[in-house]
This record gives sequence, C-alpha cells and structure tokens, in this order.
Amino acid sequence: MAKLNAQYRALQQNYLFSEVARRAAAFSEAHPERDVIRLSIGDVTRPLAPAVVAAMEQAVCEMGRAETFRGYGPEQGYDFLRQAIRGYYAGHCVNVAADEIFVSDGAKSDLGNITDLFDRDNTVLIPDPVYPVYVDTNTMDGRRIVYLPGSADNGFLPGPPDFPVDLVYLCSPNNPTGAVYDRTQLQAWVDYANGCGAVLLFDAAYEVFLHRPELPHSIFALEGARTCAIEFCSLSKTAGFTGTRCGYTVVPRELERDGMSLNRMWLRRQTTKFNGVPYVVQRGAEAVFTGAARGEIRAAVDYYRANARTIAAGLDRLGIWYTGGVDSPYIWMRCPDGMDSWSFFDRLLEGAAVVGTPGAGFGACGEGFFRLTAFGDRDRTAEAVERMVAFLGK
Amino acid sequence: MAKLNAQYRALQQNYLFSEVARRAAAFSEAHPERDVIRLSIGDVTRPLAPAVVAAMEQAVCEMGRAETFRGYGPEQGYDFLRQAIRGYYAGHCVNVAADEIFVSDGAKSDLGNITDLFDRDNTVLIPDPVYPVYVDTNTMDGRRIVYLPGSADNGFLPGPPDFPVDLVYLCSPNNPTGAVYDRTQLQAWVDYANGCGAVLLFDAAYEVFLHRPELPHSIFALEGARTCAIEFCSLSKTAGFTGTRCGYTVVPRELERDGMSLNRMWLRRQTTKFNGVPYVVQRGAEAVFTGAARGEIRAAVDYYRANARTIAAGLDRLGIWYTGGVDSPYIWMRCPDGMDSWSFFDRLLEGAAVVGTPGAGFGACGEGFFRLTAFGDRDRTAEAVERMVAFLGK
Repeated sequence: MAKLNAQYRALQQNYLFSEVARRAAAFSEAHPERDVIRLSIGDVTRPLAPAVVAAMEQAVCEMGRAETFRGYGPEQGYDFLRQAIRGYYAGHCVNVAADEIFVSDGAKSDLGNITDLFDRDNTVLIPDPVYPVYVDTNTMDGRRIVYLPGSADNGFLPGPPDFPVDLVYLCSPNNPTGAVYDRTQLQAWVDYANGCGAVLLFDAAYEVFLHRPELPHSIFALEGARTCAIEFCSLSKTAGFTGTRCGYTVVPRELERDGMSLNRMWLRRQTTKFNGVPYVVQRGAEAVFTGAARGEIRAAVDYYRANARTIAAGLDRLGIWYTGGVDSPYIWMRCPDGMDSWSFFDRLLEGAAVVGTPGAGFGACGEGFFRLTAFGDRDRTAEAVERMVAFLGK
Repeated sequence: MAKLNAQYRALQQNYLFSEVARRAAAFSEAHPERDVIRLSIGDVTRPLAPAVVAAMEQAVCEMGRAETFRGYGPEQGYDFLRQAIRGYYAGHCVNVAADEIFVSDGAKSDLGNITDLFDRDNTVLIPDPVYPVYVDTNTMDGRRIVYLPGSADNGFLPGPPDFPVDLVYLCSPNNPTGAVYDRTQLQAWVDYANGCGAVLLFDAAYEVFLHRPELPHSIFALEGARTCAIEFCSLSKTAGFTGTRCGYTVVPRELERDGMSLNRMWLRRQTTKFNGVPYVVQRGAEAVFTGAARGEIRAAVDYYRANARTIAAGLDRLGIWYTGGVDSPYIWMRCPDGMDSWSFFDRLLEGAAVVGTPGAGFGACGEGFFRLTAFGDRDRTAEAVERMVAFLGK
C-alpha cells in the first residue's frame, strides 16, 4: 500500500488572495456605482519589451525550419544565455562563472526544489512576514522552522539571531515589506552563516528595483558569500516575464558541506528532474541582458517606480509610517489608528474603493500592516492615492 | 551546520551517452575518411509544425501589446489547453476532467517531482532495462527499489510480481525497448495495483507512436485505473517539443490513499513549487491538439515510423531478434553472436560506421542488447541499415 507524504496534512491553506478577491467582489456587487482600484496587484502589467518580442519571434521562426530547429538543450541553460547573465553580474562588479549559473523556469520553482538538496534534519530560519513558498516547501519536508520577527522597530530588516541555525531564507528587496538590507546588514548575515555553517538562500527576485547606488545587487558582492550562499533571480519583475517564465540560480563552486558540493548536487538535481527552459524563452531572456532591450526594460521599471513614489508621497502627506517604495515595487504601511490588517482592508475599500493586501496574510508579524503595490496603471494609481489622502486625511 | 541530502552520494553517474559520444568521436578522429551515421539519437529532428509555429508567433505578438499581455497564468495550465487535452482523450474514448489534467514543462519534470507526494518508506518496483529518471529520483529520496527483470523470454514486457509493492513505474511504449503492453497485460497491472494498494506511475511519453488499433492509448482506458494510476504525457515526441517543453500529467480524483487525495496533493505541490508553462508554449501546445496541426504532426510521426520500419526490415533480413519498431520509435535488438552490448557497439562502429546505444547502459538486463532509434534522417537511416545488412550478413 503506497504511503503518502503525511507532511502535506500540516500545510496551511493560504486564503489571503482569494479572500481579498472575495471581499472586493462582494463590495462591487453591493455598490455597482463605485469604481474600485486595486493596489493589490502582485503581477506585472506592462507588455514584453519590443527587443524581447523580436528575439522570441525570430526563435519561433527558427523552430519551424529543419536547418535551425532545436531539440533538447542543456538542462542548465544555453551558453548564450549564461554568458549574458554572467555579463550582467560583471556589470555590477560581481564575478560568477557560467557553470555556477543555472537557468530555470523561475525563482519559485528553484526556491521550491532547492530543498531536495538538504536533509530533513535541518533547522530553517524564515523571516516573518514572508513569501509563503519558504514556509510551505519546508513544511512539506517536515523541517523545523524558526521565525525571525520583523517589526517597525527593526524596519522589517531583522538581523542574525544569537543562536545557530542550518538554513536561512532572506528576500531583499523584500516581498511583502519592500524593505532592503544595506551592505553592512547583509555582511552581518554572511558572517553569521559562515560562522555557524548555515546556508543562506538569498531571494533576489526584486533586484532590478534597487535604486540607491550604494546597495549591493547580489549577495555575492559581499565578502565570504561564496562559501555560504545561493542566489535566486527572476526575470518576472525584471522584464515582465511572469507569464513567460525564466529565472536563474547561482550556486558557487566553493559552497560545500561535509565534503559535498552544492553546485554539483544542484546540477545533478536539475539534470535528473528538469529538462531546461524553452529555446524560444531563452532567446527572449538573452535579449533582456543585451542591446536595445536594456533601455526598454528600464522604462517599464521606471514606470512602476514612479507609481511607488506616488504612493509613498501620499503616505508622507498623511504622516503614515511605511517601508519600501524606493528600492522596491512594494510599500508596506502601518494601518492607521492601530487598526488590524483586515479591519483596515474593509475601511479602505468602503471609504476609498481602494483594494490592498492585509499584512496579516503574510505572517503573524504582518498584523497591523498593509501592502500596496506599484504594478498598476499610472493614472489609476494616482487616483487611488488621491482618494486615500482625502479619506484617511479627514 | 546545514546537513545535505546524503542520498546523493548513492547516485550512480550515468556515463552511457557521454561514453557513446566519446567512442564515436575517437573513431571519427582515427578514421576521418569514414562517414559515421548515428542511430543513437534520442531527440527529434523534424521542425515544429507550421500551425504550431503560427500559434506561437501569434502568442509572442500578444505578449508585446499591453491590451493582450499575459502575466501569471494558472499553475496547472490555461483552461484552453486543458480543454484541448480533454478533447484528445475523448477522441480515444477516455473521459478525464479538466481539473485532473496538470500542464507542465515536460514528463521528466513531473516524473521527477511526483516523488514529493510519497513517503520515503515505500518499496518501488522498477523495470530493468529502464529510463534512468525512475531510479535516480527514488535513490535521491532513499526509497527501496526492487527491479523487475525484462528479457527476450517475456518480450521485455514483464508482468506483475507475486509479492506486493507500493509504487510501480511502467513505460509503454517503452524506452529503451520499444515493447508495448497490450490491453490484457495492462489490465493485469491495474488489477495488481488495486489488489495491493500500489500506485502505478504510467509513463505514456511515446503514446503517439501506437499504431495497432487494439492498443489502449491511456492507462485510463483500463477498468479500475482511476483508483490506482497517474499518467505522464509529453509533447516532446508527439509534436517535436523536446526544445519547446510541454507535457501533462493526469491525476484522477478517485486516487486516494489513507484519506488523502493525490489530485489535491499534486495541485498543492504544483501551486507551491511551480508557476506554470509559458503562455506562448501553451498556445503552441493547444495547436497540437486542434485543427490544421493534427495532420502536420501526423506527417512527422509517420516520417519517424517509416525509419523504424526500415530498421526493422533490415533486422528481419538478418534474422536478428528484436522488439519495438512498430508502435515505437525505438528498436531493441539482440546483439548477434552472443556479443555483449559494448563489444557490439565497437564492432558495428568499426565495421559499418553506425552508432547505436549499448543496452547495458539502461540496466543489468539490457546486457547483450542494443538500441536503435528512428529519429534520424530518412536517407541516412536507410544507408545505415544497408551497411548493417552488408556487414552483419557476411
């Protein structure tokens, strides 16, 4: 009799986004005359850059001709794309080798699958509030999870604890808080990990939003990171690839534990359980890093960034505490008047017809906070902020 | 200190294809005047069908315009594709519901990731010779593996054992042997699985090559399969998607063990660790199942099938025993004169400048056998067969 993975029983259902959608729909039904604006969108809305589209069209055409058709590619990605990614790192003064770069269908897949490399007997440190994938994937394996509390006091940028752990998840710029570790703070995490032998799983999915020049664009810009860190990157937010699916993970050669190389283990995992990213998508991804698309992509990021500034300026006018919005598409605000997250959700919906995301949905430490996103339309975002200022400033 | 998955130490390196390539290259270097033909290709060579190319071009274009851009799609696949797959099953008189179909980036990924759903304390029955992914993915989890020996006596179609197991892998049409279970044989496997509570992991990646009308195209054509089986399908060989990446897995709602639904568990696994297949690829996949592409795709399959017939006819002339070639792109021949697989590899390379794949590389029971594939060029395949007949018929 087949025995199933009983750890699945321990998984919490996450009703956050379905509950947000349900309440918004109920409101619209009850008030068909009200024009609801969503500042809760976690997905990009701008189209692919013309240079990316052109590269993909060319690749599709190649696939239709026998002379240029491509079958199986390397599981870890074509060399043309790995070299382009390598060049992108070099542009940030970070040196990674092509065989340390693993192209994949996205950071979510890699963040989920990386647990394959680790024993179940590991203690995992996970920030709270948090992207739910870190928690769920370790729950599926039955690992012990210790939460690291974020708060307004530490700017939702908690530092290393005073006890050792085995695995650490960090996301910076952070989803959901928009907070960003600076160089000194990240160095403290690298030193901590090297000190206790922990492996740092560094989620850099929002790296392209980094704006202040002093912020490092990669964990590997830090001294010592190559012996303790894995970095997960995504083109989803960088280049609007949420529906096109491409990311990459960097596993340094120096990263070893107990005589085993995590770089070689990840190669083995990917060659065994993965068959690479579509050729057409890899050509589109290559264009992201080269030539004409760079400017086009920058324009889309600037578009979202302007939205974030609009939201932040509104909260400044209201005197509301928040993190994010400068180096991130997310703004994490304290609910006014000591309200809890869901009460504020209802109040903002009823008072301003604006939808956001209750912070409590991202973890216990998110209670009393609220996430706004910059991925919407420019004019609609400005309109939503004016409504918030008018309603909350009364 | 992070503890790694020590099971990775138990993985065997599979040097089969690299050793084949090494010996072929060494031969070419030593004999630059010889024209080497490869009947060892496990990848498709015909381009994507024009209707598939057109659908992908259209989808790329949509991704470049704000009004038609698509971000995150459903992790389990767009409804348009799941309905198309549902229609394909209905054409074979098999009824599956849309929420039993999970679109993915390929059968290899799903066959690798499905182990997430099962406890490590399961005994796994795996045929020998075998596609290495079944063995490696279970070795990574430390499950006990029992091999099911294939031989010329059972036509490389072993039946259920006389003891219970927990998980069973079946691949039919088989890679590497080309052998195909008929309805009676498959029914015996379904009855066995239902009898002992085993879950049958049925790899149908080569289904499109089924030619004899009496052969079932899905495990779900068999009575009782919905309570014991998961089916893995791929567009790689069906429609030349090896470099385009799309497959699908069917998990019936009735499949439960110990009160847990494998359909719900797989949905949870995929929504947590996967973010769906590129929109552009899903539109190409939809075209595979609908309209004009059906005939175009059939032409490519017929092209490979004709190659298989050419190879089989050559072996018939030589009086050599083989399986496959009728309902499969693979032909599995007994090495002549009682030779072992690698000796015959060397002999065929030196005598006829033809490269095949030694059966011993697929498992202990493959020793003394040899795999030839039908994925090459038509004229080159015919030329290779003529050389084999001339050389081996001497």
